Amino acid sequence: MASDTLPPDAFAFSASSCSFLRPYLRNKSSNPQRPFLTLAYASSLDSAISLTPGIHTYLSSPQSEAMTHYLRSQHDAVVVGAGTAIADDPGLNSRVRGMGGYGGAGLEGQPRPVVLDPKGRWEWDSNARVLRMVRERKGRGPLIFWGEWGEGGDWRSKEKQRRDEERERLLKNHGGKIIRLPLVDGKMRWVDILDHLKAEGIKSVMVEGGGTVINSLLAAEHAHLINSLIVTIAPTLLGQGGVVVCPKRRTDDQGNPIPVTRLRDAKWQPMGEDVVLCGKLGE
Amino acid sequence: MASDTLPPDAFAFSASSCSFLRPYLRNKSSNPQRPFLTLAYASSLDSAISLTPGIHTYLSSPQSEAMTHYLRSQHDAVVVGAGTAIADDPGLNSRVRGMGGYGGAGLEGQPRPVVLDPKGRWEWDSNARVLRMVRERKGRGPLIFWGEWGEGGDWRSKEKQRRDEERERLLKNHGGKIIRLPLVDGKMRWVDILDHLKAEGIKSVMVEGGGTVINSLLAAEHAHLINSLIVTIAPTLLGQGGVVVCPKRRTDDQGNPIPVTRLRDAKWQPMGEDVVLCGKLGE
Repeated sequence: MASDTLPPDAFAFSASSCSFLRPYLRNKSSNPQRPFLTLAYASSLDSAISLTPGIHTYLSSPQSEAMTHYLRSQHDAVVVGAGTAIADDPGLNSRVRGMGGYGGAGLEGQPRPVVLDPKGRWEWDSNARVLRMVRERKGRGPLIFWGEWGEGGDWRSKEKQRRDEERERLLKNHGGKIIRLPLVDGKMRWVDILDHLKAEGIKSVMVEGGGTVINSLLAAEHAHLINSLIVTIAPTLLGQGGVVVCPKRRTDDQGNPIPVTRLRDAKWQPMGEDVVLCGKLGE
Repeated sequence: MASDTLPPDAFAFSASSCSFLRPYLRNKSSNPQRPFLTLAYASSLDSAISLTPGIHTYLSSPQSEAMTHYLRSQHDAVVVGAGTAIADDPGLNSRVRGMGGYGGAGLEGQPRPVVLDPKGRWEWDSNARVLRMVRERKGRGPLIFWGEWGEGGDWRSKEKQRRDEERERLLKNHGGKIIRLPLVDGKMRWVDILDHLKAEGIKSVMVEGGGTVINSLLAAEHAHLINSLIVTIAPTLLGQGGVVVCPKRRTDDQGNPIPVTRLRDAKWQPMGEDVVLCGKLGE
């Protein structure tokens, strides 16, 4: 395909400019018990990912954005929470030139979009960008995780149940699927999510946001599930009241605060006006 | 002086390893209206400078610590708040080999320590490290900024007044000085502080901490006073409850939140496991 027939939003991108990422990506020959998990997000200098909940703040440079799309192409699935789906209407595909829909064959390099929505807050319709990407053959059918609302009485109104059934049909028509998970204290368990993704044949997942999802994963009790952390930092201060990355406090046996976690093999890569930090967590 | 007679805590250090800092330091030929102000601090990935108020958290690598001491040698004064003086008992001198007391002549390269203490909380005695540095000819006599407690009735007990007078004498005997500033809403004004430092012949100041001082300077109404910002970031997450760098929110005319500030000429320099961000603010 000649480059002038590429979608205008495709990123011209050389993988060699991201060779520093390679040690932090899944070794394709490995076959781990759980999907390889990369947590990747962009923050300000004061650790905010957005100025205020529910709005998208443009933080990173075009180079860093291209890197995010490259990272998506290197994972089998891209995961976001319902808040991000609602606020950003993200495509969750990879717009890197050479990937499926952007000059490549079929859906090559396109990850499966995954939305974690324990309370069914995201009310998509056929205009949702993830579904548009499917129709334009630029993305795969999304997996949506819902809580098991049926147990202990469905709290949904008849009208919402009807709309949800309609949405489920729409999703299926786009090659997508609803997966229902039991809720514990209103939350899904990360191990359940990863087990179900593995059952779908997914060997690597990139978790992108938003704040609730990121802070839940970085908490001491879940951080061992993260294989690699990739953080883009922009030289900006957003100030108080933003959505911040700051996991739950951890204490020692005496109740004294201790650091939540420290990265292994940390590598800092300047990129445009930003820096990209790569590091390892978990095993 | 042979290197084996150097104090054991001297940093062996080549200025060439910090040549990236040069564009962010005061041009010595300039003679600005106000002292050139560098804000320099070390934070975790989640923008915390300490796990909890009142304790010192070791964040940065030995290389970054050596850089801090190099930076001190490049400024006429080093400024901290009372909380930092109380928690850390800092020396506020430069332990770089070749500076006065560390192989250099006299007090060459030693900045003047400055402590901002509007409420007179810091109760030093002769064991305070800044005073020990003076006696060991490794540092200059400190300037301590106090509020003008006399106006509107001195709130201090007779006993505290007596101790404060004793401390002032001790300070003077070490070549130091108390400077009294009017308080506005219990706070000193940055322009007053900088005016007084200028009157002391100080042409460049490095502000190091702690959280209250840093966030006050980074707030939109003061950030123009900062010439350079130098932030060392360690690949660690400290978690909730730490002392965080996060200035007061800024809003536009419609009340919508907007970023507080963005650095100009941002440069990211990996250093050991950390990264050093340099950038310009103000004019």
